[in-house]
Order: sequence, then C-alpha cells, then structure tokens
Amino acid sequence: MNLALDMMGGDFAPLEAVKGLQLYLQHNNATVYCIGDEQQVRALLSEYNLPEEKTVVIHAAEIIGYNENPTKALKEKPDSSISKGFQLLASGKVDAFLSAGNTGAMLVGAMFFLKPIEGVSRPTIASVIPKIGGDTALLLDVGLNVDCKAQHLDQFAVLGSIYSSSVLGISNPRVGLLNVGEEEGKGNTLCKETYPLLKDNSRINFIGNVEGRDIFNAGADVTVCDGYTGNVVLKLGESMYDIAKSRDMHNDEFIRRFAYENYGGTPILGVSKPVIIGHGISNDVAFCNMLLLAQKMIETDVCGTIKTAFRRTGTSAS
Amino acid sequence: MNLALDMMGGDFAPLEAVKGLQLYLQHNNATVYCIGDEQQVRALLSEYNLPEEKTVVIHAAEIIGYNENPTKALKEKPDSSISKGFQLLASGKVDAFLSAGNTGAMLVGAMFFLKPIEGVSRPTIASVIPKIGGDTALLLDVGLNVDCKAQHLDQFAVLGSIYSSSVLGISNPRVGLLNVGEEEGKGNTLCKETYPLLKDNSRINFIGNVEGRDIFNAGADVTVCDGYTGNVVLKLGESMYDIAKSRDMHNDEFIRRFAYENYGGTPILGVSKPVIIGHGISNDVAFCNMLLLAQKMIETDVCGTIKTAFRRTGTSAS
Repeated sequence: MNLALDMMGGDFAPLEAVKGLQLYLQHNNATVYCIGDEQQVRALLSEYNLPEEKTVVIHAAEIIGYNENPTKALKEKPDSSISKGFQLLASGKVDAFLSAGNTGAMLVGAMFFLKPIEGVSRPTIASVIPKIGGDTALLLDVGLNVDCKAQHLDQFAVLGSIYSSSVLGISNPRVGLLNVGEEEGKGNTLCKETYPLLKDNSRINFIGNVEGRDIFNAGADVTVCDGYTGNVVLKLGESMYDIAKSRDMHNDEFIRRFAYENYGGTPILGVSKPVIIGHGISNDVAFCNMLLLAQKMIETDVCGTIKTAFRRTGTSAS
Repeated sequence: MNLALDMMGGDFAPLEAVKGLQLYLQHNNATVYCIGDEQQVRALLSEYNLPEEKTVVIHAAEIIGYNENPTKALKEKPDSSISKGFQLLASGKVDAFLSAGNTGAMLVGAMFFLKPIEGVSRPTIASVIPKIGGDTALLLDVGLNVDCKAQHLDQFAVLGSIYSSSVLGISNPRVGLLNVGEEEGKGNTLCKETYPLLKDNSRINFIGNVEGRDIFNAGADVTVCDGYTGNVVLKLGESMYDIAKSRDMHNDEFIRRFAYENYGGTPILGVSKPVIIGHGISNDVAFCNMLLLAQKMIETDVCGTIKTAFRRTGTSAS
C-alpha cells in the first residue's frame, strides 16, 4: 500500500506530520510518499528515526498557502506539495492522498486530477458526528455543494450509506433527511423534492426526516442536507466543542468525542481514489488517524464499491 | 395595559400559567385576560390568590391540541383559547396575546387575525441566542419561512435590528449574514444575492458574513438566514442544552443561559401587535417571563417602530 502525505499542510507542518507518521508506522505497514521541502523533511525523518524503507521523500518546491485562491494556485504552482500529491495519485504511484493544507485546493485538485466517478454528479464531503449514545454518524454535504438539487441529496444518501457501512462498519445504515419537522411534506422546496426520491431509493435504508435536535441524538446514521446547511452545522458543532474545552467540560466522555484528532480528516466521496482533507490545526494524533483512515478506505475498497453502485444503477443527475 | 394569556397552552396547563401569572402580578401592573376552561381557571386563580381586579376570565370551550392541523383547527374551533385570544387582540380589547400552545396555530392565527404590517412581505420568528461573552443575540428566521428570497432576508435584518435595539437594548446592533465563509461572494445563491442588499441597506449596521462557529461566539447581534437553516440551528442548540443538562454540565454559567424559561418565548415580528409563542414545556418562570416580554414589547412600542420603518422606506418584496 502506497500513501502520499503532504508534509507541508497544517499549521504545525512539517513537524506534526512527521510525528504522526512515526506513530502510524510503529504499528502499520505502508510506503508513505512524503511530499514537501526535501531538506526539511529529510532532516526531520532522520531526527525521528523513521524507517527509510517505508518512506519516500518527494521534493515540492512550493506550498499553497491557506489564503490562496485554490484554482489559481493549483494552476500556477505545479510544484506545490498539493499538486504533486495529486499527480502521484492520478498516475497510480500511490493509492491515496492526504493533506491538512488548503481545503479548497484539495477539493479543486480532486475534481481536476481525478474527476468524479461515472454516474456521480457531485462529489461530496462528509463529517463524522459523535452521537450521545456512543454511535458514530455521518453528515453530508458539509460545504462542497452549497446549492443542491434533490437528485444530489439522493446521491449523497447513497455515497454516505456506502461509506458508513464500508468504513464506519455500520450495517444497513439508517438515512435521514435533515428537516424542520418529522412528517413527510415538511420543509423547504429542496426537502419536499428530496423526500420522495429517498423514499423510493431501494439502495438506502431511509427512515424519514430528522431534525436539528436529532443530529447528536438517536436520529439517523447518515444525515443528508445541502452543503450550506451542513457547513453551518459542522462549524457550530466545532465551536461548541471549543466552548466546552474553554469551560473545562472537555473531560466529559461525549464532549471528548468531538476532538477533531480522532477522526483523521474528511474524505471526499465520489471521486475515483481516496482523498482525505485534514484539519488545519492537525497534530501528530490527527496525522496518524488520517493515515489510518486512508488505509481503511483502501482496504475496504470504498471507492470501488461506489463505482460499482453507480455503474449498476446508472443514476444520473445534473 | 391589557394582556391576553392562553391558560390552556403548554404541557402543564393551566397550573403553570396560573403560577407564572402569580409571579408576574406580584411586581407588575396589568390586566390579564385569562382564556381557558372557566371552571378550572377560576378555581386555580382563587387557590393561588390572584387579585380579581387584575384578572379577567374568558371562557374557551375548546383547546387546539399540539398535533392538530393549524389552519383546520383555527377554522373549526372558533371557541378555542387560541382563536379567542386572537379575537381579543384583533378587536383591540388587549394589547398582546401569549400562548404556549400549538405553534403552528399561533403563526397561522397571527397572519389570519392580524395580517402583516404594511411593507413587510414575510413576518418572521426570531430566537434569542446567548453569546459566550455574556451578550444576547438574535437569530432569524427560525422556521416560519423555510424558503426565502434575498429581499426577505433583507427585511429580516431590519426587523431583527429594530427588535434588538428596542427590546434587547442593543444600540446599533451588528447584523451578520449566516454563511459558509467570511469573504463577500461566498455561499449559496441566496447568500450571494442577499449580501449586496444588506451591504446597501442604510437602515442596518451590516458587518458581513458570519459562520456557524460565530453563532455562539462574538459574531453579530442579529444573524439572518432562511428559516430552514435557522430552525436546524435552533433545535441543534436546544438539544445541546438538553445534553449538557443530562450530563451535569448545566451549572456552567454559559450553559445555564440556554434555559428556555429565561427568554419568555418567541415573538412574531412583522405583525401589527405583539404575539408571543411560548415553549410547550413552559413552567411558571417561563410564563412570567412571557408576560414580562409582552409588557416590554408594548412599552417600547416595537410594533409601532416597525410600522414607521416600513412605511417610511416603502421597502417591498414579494
């Protein structure tokens, strides 16, 4: 298994990436392509005694900063660590690409270098949500598609279900539509149009509408909504975690489960190969978990399952 | 000052309404029209020693239940406590109407009996949001208008600003547009169309986009969004409070400020007279605070200020 890791992404790069890689390689076997400033990366790999047979350093002369325009930066910086990572992934040299760098550049890069899986009209990003009962659920889209049609949400439901069962290990995941009330017929135009599609979709286990109060409670295993709403919910949840931490409530078992490090980043679903976006403030544990998530996505062949699902049904949406 | 209170609304009606009224009348002067089952209400008013000169019992032979269709129920139950309350308000006998009963019936009743203020195309409901720094902000719309146009959000900004300054006492309240990023040009179609309207609106103090993470943090004093998103955020916030309570975190000063009792219910903004919707689980403190809020809305003449603002500018939206 070959993984490509952007060593220059994240606020504490490349140190935390190296430390995370060290944690990961202690217990796992993979060849990791470390993309970044060769001199800096080599020095740190050596300092942290990382095994040479498991690491390949790929020099990237440039970095795409957090505030750069993604499309412009990808065009103008072919030697950036993000561009190089996607080149490696597209060429087949590696099986997954991971970065805690510029999120927009990762999204644009995934579309440009990999393209969506045939039949998937809108790749999507999902966030893992801790449930009060101990379960782990999925919310999508969380920001890639701010304007959606019903057909897109219908596809998100399939993508989320496949990811939930393959990667999170939830069998026959219950799918809910985020709405303002439980009854069929509730909601805005998008919800009203989406509900019948989900109800008729034999590939998912649709349980109906779920509300804002259900997101962290029982609710569904996979909750679908447009990316505008999902992004608001995601950032609100993150801020609640930060508030809880700042007020000494982070020792609570439920609150602790919000810690971003645990989730290893956000996968882009619907592109042909595993691409994982890490949090800007990723520490060593976060990088290690990103690598573990990539490994799991490869081992479970979640992208292959998605390809088969969308080829079989020929679902189309524009 | 004459207030009409639905004694039959709320899970603990009419007892908690009576106890709340008792709390209120201890320190305030108003005549309260108590609408409900005459026998039950009279017995409780007497049991709790409520002053006869400050209470008028209005018999209502019917109740609109929580699960009834609002429009149908209002038509078929003219003798319900909610219908009678609106009749009193529309006729001018009382200056405000308050109920913790069927929310939908309260919304439909407000539109049917009172109609929107001239120039207001969409009355709206707002929720009070506690900020981590101690301030109190407003989020609107929180569910009355699930599909919105930019012009509606522009009007919500004005309605929210007037309420925030008149009732919450915030001078020159900062208005934010709930969005997925801070920069102008971010967001879904609705946000992109709303931003320039808010920017050009000289009647508000627009500070730009705010994100999900800003809702409980610094952010804006008045945050506007469509009612679908606002409803999801509101219910998510309520569920976080419930979770915090269930996990013994409710002694935290910030968490305590989420307690619904403190806010005295949700006003409908943009109709000609004060209408306040209470929480279904309202207790005595909640009822008392609903009455105090009604009193404040009358004393500050917030509806009159809204009328003047919309007459002056002739803002129109459809």
